[in-house]
Amino acid sequence: MEKCPRELKIDADVVRAVLERFIRREVERAGAKGVVVGVSGGVDSAVCAALCAGALGAANVTALWLPYRDESARDDALAVLERYELKSRKVSVAPMVDAYLAQAPAGDDVRRGNVCARARMVVLFDFSKHLRALVVGTGNKTELLMGYYTLFGDGASSLAPLADLYKGQVYLLAEALDVPARVIARAPSAGFWPGQADEKEMGVAYRELDRYFYWLVEKGETPAALVRRGFKGSFQRRVLERVNANLFKRHVPLVPKISGKTITKAVKIPDGF
Amino acid sequence: MEKCPRELKIDADVVRAVLERFIRREVERAGAKGVVVGVSGGVDSAVCAALCAGALGAANVTALWLPYRDESARDDALAVLERYELKSRKVSVAPMVDAYLAQAPAGDDVRRGNVCARARMVVLFDFSKHLRALVVGTGNKTELLMGYYTLFGDGASSLAPLADLYKGQVYLLAEALDVPARVIARAPSAGFWPGQADEKEMGVAYRELDRYFYWLVEKGETPAALVRRGFKGSFQRRVLERVNANLFKRHVPLVPKISGKTITKAVKIPDGF
Repeated sequence: MEKCPRELKIDADVVRAVLERFIRREVERAGAKGVVVGVSGGVDSAVCAALCAGALGAANVTALWLPYRDESARDDALAVLERYELKSRKVSVAPMVDAYLAQAPAGDDVRRGNVCARARMVVLFDFSKHLRALVVGTGNKTELLMGYYTLFGDGASSLAPLADLYKGQVYLLAEALDVPARVIARAPSAGFWPGQADEKEMGVAYRELDRYFYWLVEKGETPAALVRRGFKGSFQRRVLERVNANLFKRHVPLVPKISGKTITKAVKIPDGF
Repeated sequence: MEKCPRELKIDADVVRAVLERFIRREVERAGAKGVVVGVSGGVDSAVCAALCAGALGAANVTALWLPYRDESARDDALAVLERYELKSRKVSVAPMVDAYLAQAPAGDDVRRGNVCARARMVVLFDFSKHLRALVVGTGNKTELLMGYYTLFGDGASSLAPLADLYKGQVYLLAEALDVPARVIARAPSAGFWPGQADEKEMGVAYRELDRYFYWLVEKGETPAALVRRGFKGSFQRRVLERVNANLFKRHVPLVPKISGKTITKAVKIPDGF
């Protein structure tokens, strides 16, 4: 079965060109010397790395492989680095993460996963400062809607080229960009623990989720109308519960309005004089 | 000399009440069990801790003291914890930070400071998950405009009660909240290295900066008009250069628009059904 539902088909070559131009333009505008991208062995980071290499040339892309303890994705990550001839470096986050966990209240896999994701952010942004490069985030629109990412962890980046593309659309790009087949074939995983799988953890399949979001978000149909399109109540409830439980991630930090000019994205300052 | 310029005077008791209500309401709305706040010994975190204690009761506030190596602010931090009778815990970020630095490209004080600020974020958010509490950020409007904070470090929080108050206004609140005099008297510092001082590092004094932002941001006057109000060109250039160089911090991650419904704060999803 194709990974991208029919409704979400895109012209992958056109989108690829748009994204490469976006990356090139933003790197230029920031006066940066290139980009840093975390390559995990998964399809999202493979597509990001390929887009960056296409936009900037491989010499301006630094790929970091940032495993915790589980290194089972090593060969998939290596396949990506080789395919796009990227400069790369391995930095294990295990020393950082374990140094903290030794002082932390006892936790679970999810809390440890969040610490890993944030430790990766620390490494990516430190390298970006060192190299005067931008951090490219690898999150896609499906994850963004589901809140299936760590706030200030993998959710943190300078540029997020895939953030307006559903997971299925990322697969279409992956094919256009000639991402190694083994990476495309792999079950999506946040990689927080061995055997973790996105679809198992979320309790829904990406393909169904993408189709649902197409009708709900892109077309603005109501949940009630979507029952008539065949989306079961139990499925919709599971999805909407998670979406709404994670909505806060898009809105933090919350700021109380005190002055006439609260600082938001919209407040502009003169360039200089 | 008073720390708050005349133009920016506020009724501290009214603002205090507004901020305490904000904290209480947002904690309730999130269904959280309280807040976690990093207490450094500085005035911003002291004011935040006091507001949280006032809003929620001290029993619902967990104060974390998160030193790197320099523990010279210890007594100032302790004075805050005692004054508001807060539950507290010390977690040194040194093990985490040093574990990473041992693998990192050689750097400078600023890069190490950013790693510290982000390591503190990791600890605060992990405790917040553990305690089902919100992270209260301590940044003020002056820092926010200057970009004088670490992106995804101290810039990251759930609630930012001081983000619409200039530094001088925070001092007015500090007096109203009976913050220990030793904390009010201390020179503001990010605490990244011994002897670091905000005003020395930024090259401008908070009082002058606050007055400048009042006219520039709140009143919308132009830099040229502000020369006539006595703000020197060299001062304005130094400030505007920093403000503009750090503007990107309010806008990341940048997302290229591909679909008709790019996910932003504005995109609403049905609550459920």
